[in-house]
Parts: sequence; C-alpha cells; structure tokens
Amino acid sequence: MSKFHDTGPAAALIRLGERLPAPPAPLGAYVPVRAAGDLMFTSGMLPMRDGAVAYTGRVGADLTVDQAREAAVLCARNAVAALAAALGGVEALANIREIVQVTGHVLSAEGFSDQSAVVDGASAWLMEVFGEAGRHTRLALGAFALPRNAAVELALVVRIGPP
Amino acid sequence: MSKFHDTGPAAALIRLGERLPAPPAPLGAYVPVRAAGDLMFTSGMLPMRDGAVAYTGRVGADLTVDQAREAAVLCARNAVAALAAALGGVEALANIREIVQVTGHVLSAEGFSDQSAVVDGASAWLMEVFGEAGRHTRLALGAFALPRNAAVELALVVRIGPP
Amino acid sequence: MSKFHDTGPAAALIRLGERLPAPPAPLGAYVPVRAAGDLMFTSGMLPMRDGAVAYTGRVGADLTVDQAREAAVLCARNAVAALAAALGGVEALANIREIVQVTGHVLSAEGFSDQSAVVDGASAWLMEVFGEAGRHTRLALGAFALPRNAAVELALVVRIGPP
Repeated sequence: MSKFHDTGPAAALIRLGERLPAPPAPLGAYVPVRAAGDLMFTSGMLPMRDGAVAYTGRVGADLTVDQAREAAVLCARNAVAALAAALGGVEALANIREIVQVTGHVLSAEGFSDQSAVVDGASAWLMEVFGEAGRHTRLALGAFALPRNAAVELALVVRIGPP
Repeated sequence: MSKFHDTGPAAALIRLGERLPAPPAPLGAYVPVRAAGDLMFTSGMLPMRDGAVAYTGRVGADLTVDQAREAAVLCARNAVAALAAALGGVEALANIREIVQVTGHVLSAEGFSDQSAVVDGASAWLMEVFGEAGRHTRLALGAFALPRNAAVELALVVRIGPP
Repeated sequence: MSKFHDTGPAAALIRLGERLPAPPAPLGAYVPVRAAGDLMFTSGMLPMRDGAVAYTGRVGADLTVDQAREAAVLCARNAVAALAAALGGVEALANIREIVQVTGHVLSAEGFSDQSAVVDGASAWLMEVFGEAGRHTRLALGAFALPRNAAVELALVVRIGPP
C-alpha cells in the first residue's frame, strides 16, 4: 500500500472498516453537492440507510444521545459519500483540504439541550477520516421538526485543492 | 427578441408571466444582499408581499402544504428580486452562474415532517427561472418560530460570473 | 493615537469601553474559526461569559427581548474575539473587509415572533464596531432547543483582505 493510501481519507475509511454507501437520492428538485470556486456545499443530509431514514424521532424522548450520535455519523457518512461521488471517487476525497463547516440540526425533545454531544459524533468521525483537514467550525442546533421525522440533518462546507 | 432574452432568467420570468416585486425592506440593521468575491449571500427572506407577510402560521395546522409552497416561492421571488437589485436589474440576473445553496426554514406544526415538499416549491421555481444554473444544494428544516410568524424563511447563496 | 486607531474596529472597541473576552472554548471536537480562501467562518457562538452560559431559557417566557438582545451581543462579541484570536490580535480585526452574514438562532417561547429585534442587538453592535464593513446579510430564526439551553446561538461569515 502506498504512502498516499496510508494517510488519506480513503485509507482511513479502510482502517475504520467502512465502505461509503451510495449517496442518498435527493428528496426533491435539488442536488447533493454543488461547487463554487474551491468551496463545495452539500445539501442537508439525513441519516438514510438503504433508501430509508434509519433514525427517526426526538432525541431526549424517542432516542438516546448515543443513538442520535450514530444518526449524526450516518449523516456525515452520507455527506462524504456525496462529496466522493461529486469528486470522482473515494480516492479523490484527498482533494478536500479542509472541512470548513458542519451544521447539525438535532430533532429535540422539549428540554433537551445536549445537541453538542450529538453532533460531536459527526465531528469525531470526520476528524478520524480527514485528520487535520477535518478540523471544522460547527453549529449544533435543536430542531422542532425535520423532513421525514429524521433525528438529525447535517450539512458540510468543504474546501478543495490539490493534495 | 435576442437569443439572450430567450434563454436567460429575465426571459424566463416574462415567459412565466412574472414581474419581480420591489425587494422587501430589511426588518432591522442589515442588508438584503452581500457579495464576497464571486459569491453572493442573501438575507433570510420572508414571504412578504406589498410590505406585509402574506403567509403566517404553522404548516400542518394553520396552512396546507400547497399554501406553504406558495409561501416558499414568494420567499424565493423576494430573494431573486434582492439579487437583481444588487446586480443592477433583472437582465443582470444572467450573471448568476449557479444557485449554490437554498436554505428553507418552514414554520411547522408538531408532527409535520414534509418540509421537503414545501421547500420544493422554491426549488422548482428557481429551476424554471435559472434552468441548469438553478440546480442547487438545499437544506429543508422545521422551525419552531420565525420572525412575524412567517410560514417560511429562505436564504440563497449564488455564484456570479460573466454570462 | 494614529488615524488607524481612530477608525478601525480596535479603536471602536476602546471607544465603546469594551475589552474582548478570551474566545470561549469549543464544547466539542471542533474549532472556533476556519478560513477558506478570503472567507472566515465562525462556529455557532453561545452567550458565554467566564466559561458559563450567561443567558439561558426561552425568549418571550424566561427572558425579555432586552435580555435576549444582550445575549445576542455577547454571542457577537465572542465571535469577534474568536476572529481576533485567529487573525493574530484585536488590531488585526482591521483585516475584516466585510461581515458577510450573521445567522442568529433565538431560543423562543411558543408564539414569540420577534427574533428580528433580538438579533438586531448583534447587528447594531457589529455596525458600531466595524462601521461600513459591518453591513451584513442576516438570518433570524426561532430555535426550539439550543446547546446548554442558551438563549441565542450566532455565527458569522466574514471576508478578509488587506486594510
């Protein structure tokens, strides 16, 4: 295995024993990823698995924080899968110079205020996959309602450049 | 009519029988549009018509999905009117190379989870007006409260370049 | 005092009798500020003071609009403190060519719909500190839940360039 494979996000995914899923199909008249200069924006990603939302309901009532963290990781994985597809494959994730911003909306029960712990699941996973390039700014927010009653919706802004 | 008129967003608006409204006045100490390099950001636009919010209340309780879609289109129309004003007129909308991102916050009743269908109103309208350049990423979110009890708040990020 | 001191944001802070706080520590695996080209994004800032959230609860029930405005200003002050730290000091705030966008999420009581007045506190403060460069686009939104039950969460996008 080359040095590149040892250190890039594609290698990290192998090390983590992960295969990126096929990027989820949009729920309407929009696209998963759009580039603007050297920035790429993803759509809001839901915790979809095999075409269905895998985590629904309010965190703090219907789901535990641990379950919601898994949901947040799944959103992040779907976002990275969409970026890989837009960039031309998993190896091309090495072109991501930095994860600029993560915005995580957490469907919350009344009185639940640990959205940071939930979105931290996604943050930690992105750091594992992208290393230093994965250090991002973040908004963690408590949503009243989300499409399809998803537990989390998460979007990324990343910056692209030659490895 | 020139080819340019036949194919640009100004022509699409004529074809749709639409006149852009005057861009709504901000509700506070901010501006409707700001450019940063070749990106332009709009403020969150409400479904204002003639100086008043035309659609108020929670979708799924006070408004139907169809009504909320109309609200989302009105927000998008106000955002595009603000961009036209910033760019120097309706014809200058041809300088928008892409709608990069649409963020739509939908004032939602408890249990309402079809925010995607609501924001799709705006997405479809933007595609009609901008064609390929209108293909955007999107976040559809369920708000608990919005300024003036508006049914929808919607913001755009677009990329500008010579036609 | 030089002309520069008289007119830049550092001078405005002195005129306002303000000292920027130390930027608040992130609540998880993220960073306060990230640059992407000439844009800088901040994380969502809470109304932290001396390591604790100074304003908690729902505006319109637990807090008045005036209290929530103070919370919004505190968020903005923390965001500017984080930008100063990232840029290399308070004087380096003069490199901010424009505040591009302010996003303010206001923890809202049922039926509270004056999020604009709350976020206006931050907008007015940014205009006082940055002058013309402080003119920004804005989203004011009503949150159902926020981390640590904070009354406001606020994030900035700014553009950097030589003074």
